[in-house]
Amino acid sequence: MTELPRRVLFGAAYYHEYQPYERLEEDLDLMAEARFTVIRVGESVWSTWEPENGQFALDWLQPVLDGAHERGIAVILGTPTYAVPPWLARLYPEITGERRTGERIGWGARQEVDFTHPAFRFHAERIVRRIAGRYAAHPAVIGFQVDNEPGNELLHNRGVFQRFTDDLRHRYGDVATLNREWGLVYWSHRLSTWADLWTPDGNVQPQYDVAWRRFQAAQTTEFIAWQADLIREYRRPGQFVTTCIAYERPAVDDDRLTDHLDVTAGNPYYRMQDALELPDRRSADQHWTSSGVWALQLSADRMYASRQEPFLVTETNAGSIGGPWDNRPAYDGQWRQAAWLLVSRGARMIEYWHWHTLHFGTETYWGGVLPHSGKPGRTWHELARLGAEFDRAGDLVAGLTPDADVTFLFSLPSKWLMQKYPPLATPDGGPDARAYHGLFDPFYRGAFDAGLQSRIVSRPADVDTPVLVVPGLYLADDDTLDQLRGYAEAGGHLVLGPRTGYADPEGRARTDRMPARLAEAAGAWYDEFSNLSTEVPVDGLDGRATRWVDGLTVTDATVVARYDHPHFGRWPAITTRRVGAGRITVVGTVPDVDLAKALFRWLVPQHGEVPPSVTVTGATAPDGRVVRFVHNWSFTPAVVRLESHVADVLGDDVYPAGAEIALGPWDVRVLNVT
Amino acid sequence: MTELPRRVLFGAAYYHEYQPYERLEEDLDLMAEARFTVIRVGESVWSTWEPENGQFALDWLQPVLDGAHERGIAVILGTPTYAVPPWLARLYPEITGERRTGERIGWGARQEVDFTHPAFRFHAERIVRRIAGRYAAHPAVIGFQVDNEPGNELLHNRGVFQRFTDDLRHRYGDVATLNREWGLVYWSHRLSTWADLWTPDGNVQPQYDVAWRRFQAAQTTEFIAWQADLIREYRRPGQFVTTCIAYERPAVDDDRLTDHLDVTAGNPYYRMQDALELPDRRSADQHWTSSGVWALQLSADRMYASRQEPFLVTETNAGSIGGPWDNRPAYDGQWRQAAWLLVSRGARMIEYWHWHTLHFGTETYWGGVLPHSGKPGRTWHELARLGAEFDRAGDLVAGLTPDADVTFLFSLPSKWLMQKYPPLATPDGGPDARAYHGLFDPFYRGAFDAGLQSRIVSRPADVDTPVLVVPGLYLADDDTLDQLRGYAEAGGHLVLGPRTGYADPEGRARTDRMPARLAEAAGAWYDEFSNLSTEVPVDGLDGRATRWVDGLTVTDATVVARYDHPHFGRWPAITTRRVGAGRITVVGTVPDVDLAKALFRWLVPQHGEVPPSVTVTGATAPDGRVVRFVHNWSFTPAVVRLESHVADVLGDDVYPAGAEIALGPWDVRVLNVT
Amino acid sequence: MTELPRRVLFGAAYYHEYQPYERLEEDLDLMAEARFTVIRVGESVWSTWEPENGQFALDWLQPVLDGAHERGIAVILGTPTYAVPPWLARLYPEITGERRTGERIGWGARQEVDFTHPAFRFHAERIVRRIAGRYAAHPAVIGFQVDNEPGNELLHNRGVFQRFTDDLRHRYGDVATLNREWGLVYWSHRLSTWADLWTPDGNVQPQYDVAWRRFQAAQTTEFIAWQADLIREYRRPGQFVTTCIAYERPAVDDDRLTDHLDVTAGNPYYRMQDALELPDRRSADQHWTSSGVWALQLSADRMYASRQEPFLVTETNAGSIGGPWDNRPAYDGQWRQAAWLLVSRGARMIEYWHWHTLHFGTETYWGGVLPHSGKPGRTWHELARLGAEFDRAGDLVAGLTPDADVTFLFSLPSKWLMQKYPPLATPDGGPDARAYHGLFDPFYRGAFDAGLQSRIVSRPADVDTPVLVVPGLYLADDDTLDQLRGYAEAGGHLVLGPRTGYADPEGRARTDRMPARLAEAAGAWYDEFSNLSTEVPVDGLDGRATRWVDGLTVTDATVVARYDHPHFGRWPAITTRRVGAGRITVVGTVPDVDLAKALFRWLVPQHGEVPPSVTVTGATAPDGRVVRFVHNWSFTPAVVRLESHVADVLGDDVYPAGAEIALGPWDVRVLNVT
Repeated sequence: MTELPRRVLFGAAYYHEYQPYERLEEDLDLMAEARFTVIRVGESVWSTWEPENGQFALDWLQPVLDGAHERGIAVILGTPTYAVPPWLARLYPEITGERRTGERIGWGARQEVDFTHPAFRFHAERIVRRIAGRYAAHPAVIGFQVDNEPGNELLHNRGVFQRFTDDLRHRYGDVATLNREWGLVYWSHRLSTWADLWTPDGNVQPQYDVAWRRFQAAQTTEFIAWQADLIREYRRPGQFVTTCIAYERPAVDDDRLTDHLDVTAGNPYYRMQDALELPDRRSADQHWTSSGVWALQLSADRMYASRQEPFLVTETNAGSIGGPWDNRPAYDGQWRQAAWLLVSRGARMIEYWHWHTLHFGTETYWGGVLPHSGKPGRTWHELARLGAEFDRAGDLVAGLTPDADVTFLFSLPSKWLMQKYPPLATPDGGPDARAYHGLFDPFYRGAFDAGLQSRIVSRPADVDTPVLVVPGLYLADDDTLDQLRGYAEAGGHLVLGPRTGYADPEGRARTDRMPARLAEAAGAWYDEFSNLSTEVPVDGLDGRATRWVDGLTVTDATVVARYDHPHFGRWPAITTRRVGAGRITVVGTVPDVDLAKALFRWLVPQHGEVPPSVTVTGATAPDGRVVRFVHNWSFTPAVVRLESHVADVLGDDVYPAGAEIALGPWDVRVLNVT
Repeated sequence: MTELPRRVLFGAAYYHEYQPYERLEEDLDLMAEARFTVIRVGESVWSTWEPENGQFALDWLQPVLDGAHERGIAVILGTPTYAVPPWLARLYPEITGERRTGERIGWGARQEVDFTHPAFRFHAERIVRRIAGRYAAHPAVIGFQVDNEPGNELLHNRGVFQRFTDDLRHRYGDVATLNREWGLVYWSHRLSTWADLWTPDGNVQPQYDVAWRRFQAAQTTEFIAWQADLIREYRRPGQFVTTCIAYERPAVDDDRLTDHLDVTAGNPYYRMQDALELPDRRSADQHWTSSGVWALQLSADRMYASRQEPFLVTETNAGSIGGPWDNRPAYDGQWRQAAWLLVSRGARMIEYWHWHTLHFGTETYWGGVLPHSGKPGRTWHELARLGAEFDRAGDLVAGLTPDADVTFLFSLPSKWLMQKYPPLATPDGGPDARAYHGLFDPFYRGAFDAGLQSRIVSRPADVDTPVLVVPGLYLADDDTLDQLRGYAEAGGHLVLGPRTGYADPEGRARTDRMPARLAEAAGAWYDEFSNLSTEVPVDGLDGRATRWVDGLTVTDATVVARYDHPHFGRWPAITTRRVGAGRITVVGTVPDVDLAKALFRWLVPQHGEVPPSVTVTGATAPDGRVVRFVHNWSFTPAVVRLESHVADVLGDDVYPAGAEIALGPWDVRVLNVT
Repeated sequence: MTELPRRVLFGAAYYHEYQPYERLEEDLDLMAEARFTVIRVGESVWSTWEPENGQFALDWLQPVLDGAHERGIAVILGTPTYAVPPWLARLYPEITGERRTGERIGWGARQEVDFTHPAFRFHAERIVRRIAGRYAAHPAVIGFQVDNEPGNELLHNRGVFQRFTDDLRHRYGDVATLNREWGLVYWSHRLSTWADLWTPDGNVQPQYDVAWRRFQAAQTTEFIAWQADLIREYRRPGQFVTTCIAYERPAVDDDRLTDHLDVTAGNPYYRMQDALELPDRRSADQHWTSSGVWALQLSADRMYASRQEPFLVTETNAGSIGGPWDNRPAYDGQWRQAAWLLVSRGARMIEYWHWHTLHFGTETYWGGVLPHSGKPGRTWHELARLGAEFDRAGDLVAGLTPDADVTFLFSLPSKWLMQKYPPLATPDGGPDARAYHGLFDPFYRGAFDAGLQSRIVSRPADVDTPVLVVPGLYLADDDTLDQLRGYAEAGGHLVLGPRTGYADPEGRARTDRMPARLAEAAGAWYDEFSNLSTEVPVDGLDGRATRWVDGLTVTDATVVARYDHPHFGRWPAITTRRVGAGRITVVGTVPDVDLAKALFRWLVPQHGEVPPSVTVTGATAPDGRVVRFVHNWSFTPAVVRLESHVADVLGDDVYPAGAEIALGPWDVRVLNVT
């Protein structure tokens, strides 16, 4: 990993050019007062960098960099390729992205472009080289962000589709092979020549969709890698290159994308106010913002997973983030809580979006650190307190490795396919485009509710915890399934959830009894399954089955839980079997919050008891020191009994093991285990 | 009717070409073991029959036909015109169907074609002749299915629209006549010449819509008749020609279509599991699958109605049928129940869709007889039991004429018009595109709940029961209305529901007091009406009025029920009057389940009492033998007292009149009245 | 104002040309019997006036005008430009309106045209001149309606967009100015030349939207003014020119539009039956029909506001108005109630839409005075009673100035902007496109529920009541905000609601602490705010806060009400402060029905008590006589104690002050205070 400062970077995106009047010095002074150590600049204003085709105006940023540097504030310099100037759109309308073949996106927002188009690339390269050439040497610049939240569209432009066809041609060799592998005998889809391939607009074949989504994500990876390589021609030693990832974008594969970056950077937006309350039985919608403490922690764990190492938070809520109809600024204390939670899971930068609330444009109600008045308000004061805390905590909390009790295998290809072919229904019976999360999240949340900490991986090889949970791994090759069995045989406890091991990497249902290649070791198989529209009580563990039932037939396994139902009762809900040195447990349903928690308490019986509004997470500093984070997610104060001797990182107190520590409303304590 | 085997045909659609590995012999052996007598083949794979333009590959089906024949399994051979090969789409993109003028359907599914286009017809004729020429003589082939579930789209292609204009020109003669008949004075729509006619995309005039929908259905009829005639050039004596009808398709008129077929064939898909439970107070959505026993029975009665004779079930649920998010395989026993119900209403073939669950393609989760594992599972075992029952029942149950206590008049043109101009609202106040069924179904279901059996007709002339119920007959010519009055005068009990007799065949509101041409005989009229957003209690019969109230003014009739409401209470809900030798009853509202049941108990007072989970249906064999079917639609066993002396068709028991017969969970008994 | 008859005009739109058979004399006799004094004719049938390009047929209307005149029925003559003939659409398809750039509206309804297109204007002028030239001199004609409910579309045609760009060029001078004023630095939107401006289809920038909506409304105003000027070349002295306004149309600015008319004319459609019941706690959807007595009164007060003078009701419900699925004809008495309510608020014509219920076309179920039978039904009889009442009331009630206790400032530009950038969410969390009314209506309704009468203005200068309420005035220039403060300083009680004074006229958030330019005088400011998804109880006044909270910080004000909430409780809900001779009250939330009523009882403490189903409104005749209207909106009779000595305008009774007057179900009394 690129060398980063030995403390948590703390700051905001800063758009001096958006301020309605001159206030550079005032802004930077207020940042310094709040102990800011970093700002991000320049990524949104291509038309300011280059007001006309080939006419460059690069000087405007100089005072910002100088002013930041004078105050010891580092700078991440962004490239502006995500927002194309109107003159470029006018000159080459063919670069306009298409959401359906031949239907161009209307201009007026950003990311409307087919970023694979050579006419775009020509201009993008030119402006990137100019900016990097001009500012890479500035001493304030510690790194670069190329583009911004890429992968926002599934591009249907002709060039993209033709290259998709070429990619298939290279991958499969001839149409006979594609016809066979995709099952194109079905509904008369056999191609006679590559030119027969239909465009994606009307496609309803899953096999096509698997390839299409993979290809789309590969375009994003290629584009960002290309830009990162451009920057690397200019950067000084020690400067990093990254991009900020919005993990819900449809065309981004964080795993492959970050192979081309020096550090992962992500934008975890989350809902504030009551959405952060614990205990939490809500089943809140998750969109590009997460909702719930467990969901915020999941977004942190996904960022850690991209490179299995600490990461940067390039954007997160300053004020409330969302449309003009969705202003919900945090309660006092929640900013600190969220920031420390992110740090506890490996964040080594907390950079807010953004410094000042904008006075014009789409995001007029995406709240910044400063309100529209430009005068420090509640947000600034809360963040200044947090800045002081980061100052005090110093290197102890920078680049933490978060604790993990259990590991989850996450499959982007399965998620993509389930967006179009979901196994779960919405409450009104329609397809649930978030079905992958409908399978994955209840397990992750169950671990969270059971007081466990989780790691997320995309390959079985990366697992180093005694429990591995795999829900919804619909697309899997033989090798991956065999590695899962190997994990159990070698002593791990493998937990399989619904839909895992059902299809091959082409999205074809396997011809085995399910779970394929694992049924024998699991001692249970199924060849039928059912959706549930009402919840079904379960015996054996507390809670209820929801949404799905696999018809598990036990050949040689112990039944852990069973359905209380005249039809489904014939099948167990959960089975378990010793395998080699380990164990395979099969969960044939989507557990509700109670059953999920009970499942994880059964999986990892040892756990402390904390009040229901409290979470405790732990992590290890690069130098081996051990840190604990205790949060109280409630208006109601709480008291927690400590298990070890600890020192208060943010204060002077030292507590012996067994002591009690008091938390106020929406409070967080950072403790060094000594 | 074409000569069909003297037993219920039993089998499945069989796609050997879709199997992921060779297993023809194994498949056919398993079919034979389950007593299959028929398979349907070949209708989906034009691109296999003709991999390139003019290159034919016809041999692949031979082993399937031979293998079936060896085992005594008959074959229905399909023509593949519903699924166009990619090469044809590439060569002649102008054959692509358009859902709006100029907007082509995306390729990638099936039925994307303008089947009226000569470039399509040229190729369709060629492949149909090749397949029929090759296989008509095969001894296994007992019949042909041309195309598949036709009428899936309202085609807006230029040729279709121009022929629509020509059709109007031929029908009306000149624009002055059209202007007058369609009321085109309204909103300045008078045409000056035929070229003035607007395309259907923006049309909001009901008169246009009536003609447009009729024309669309006529295209489907013409296409299927054309193909059927092609096949007739090749078929052997005794072989039948049909197509499989999905009755909810927007452009199919089963009544006219089946005039060109040798036998009706339909695809009644239905919801399994709790959807089949009785008693049933749910108001489930009905889509292309029915939901509820009454709704399954309705779909059977509609198939019988197409030609007023027994029919084939070409497709029905093997495993669960629906999207990947909608897997609900039957409870044990439900397959038998549904099959015997269909047979009791006149089905002489039960052919499941489909033999094996597909491993690729859109329908990967449309469940077949075999699961993805290819090993017989619960479905196969349940169907094998049923196969044995059909074997035992033999000719007694093949080609039954179902009993009918009451008759319903069904109007496709009224249904079509109400899809765009519905008289009923959805719960949120919007237009209910299923309003025709919103009017029709509560009456049909009331008869079902009252223990009655129904026949459906499209012309008053076809009625031969003492009660005729006519809800929602919005479009009707004078002659039809006069025939209805004539039915009553001749001794029948005519029951009119809301909207009947309101408009003429052009969809123009009549200028009479309503119900037009019937008000005087009914002794009641109305000139106003109201939608209801809340239900209104009714006095006189149990139950409530829903959705609609006609302001019935009694001139000379007896009030049967009245609204309990400060405004609507001025009008009766139901009136009745002797007319000639019969009677006319007017129902001014949509009855809820209680009121509908009470209405039919009042209409047909004599009825036996059975437990609330039990239905009893009856039918007559071609040779005059009388059969009874007793179903228990519940997990709870039931006991039924028999009214006649019967023999158990599926066992050896004989029961005297008055004996009790026990039914298990989801059980069915077939009894021969002796 | 144009000279109008000294009595309330009473009648209907009359489409003799739509009748299915000849019945002119019968229709006119029935109108005369119901005391009709006016009909509107001719506005929908351009293709009848001009069956082919340049061939005119103008005589058909003569018998209608003659027949009306013979019976003393006046005529408003409409121009038919809202419904373009098919031949014109065929000749010049480029006149078709576009809802998105390049996407033409489908023909088949009406108002499909780009009315700014010269090819349309050429033909529109020709037909208007022909009709006006032919009939302006007819003695029956008292006025003209040009076009009909204009402003139905936001037109995206090329010419419209290019003139929009020209308009910006003229308004801002150069792109540098536009870049600065619109903040186009944001997201690289800076223009290099006018040709860079993007079309509105993909726009997400509020500043663009402000200009676009203003420009669209200006097109409508220009078109109507152009037609009105054409008519003025032909009209006789005393004949008025107007158009009928549907106030919810997206491109109509009634304030500016009516500057070019002689009298305001509007089409207040409303929901009948239970929607008119009081007391009313429903939060009914408001669409192009209002729902609730308060909402009907609001639509009347908006019509009065357009020119701050009495107005014509050109269309309102005869029978039920709406789609075929939404028939809800009034309860007995409701027609009278609604008509007298409109008159009490300044209506000097009540013209129903329409005489006879149409037998064909889209509006077959928009109910007329006569039902489809053509025989007088309940509606005719109810209206005949009302006609007699208007006859009796005579000049007393024609051209009333309605009483006003409080004034509301209404901002169309704020409403338009909030349709795309709403500050309020729907219950499911999405943007509420009716957010402006979400802010405005609860205050208006609070005044209504408190028994107060309201006036609506668009400029502070028009206020002449002691209380001025300003919710949701998001877009405001400095001068307007200063005038508001001036109103308070001069002795008025200014009540500010959420979002008022937040942005400048370009839609840019102001840089002040809020409410901008008013916070100091109000003694309270805020720099943050929150949406509410659940209601929050309030202390100090009865009721609850909903949807929005401003974080009010008191500098020098009295707290009237406070939130009962652990977070929001830090801020007051309502503050008040003496300012000069008056007072400023700030309401930081959207009050629920209880809080809104309590607020207005606090604002205007003196009020009489009437039963909860009763309203009392008052008005002054042009000659100074005072009238009271007492309505009982319920099936339950009510008794009201009179405060003054009154004479029953519709009867012979005279009541002393303190007497009680009895109202039947859905009754209304008109009283002359003597």
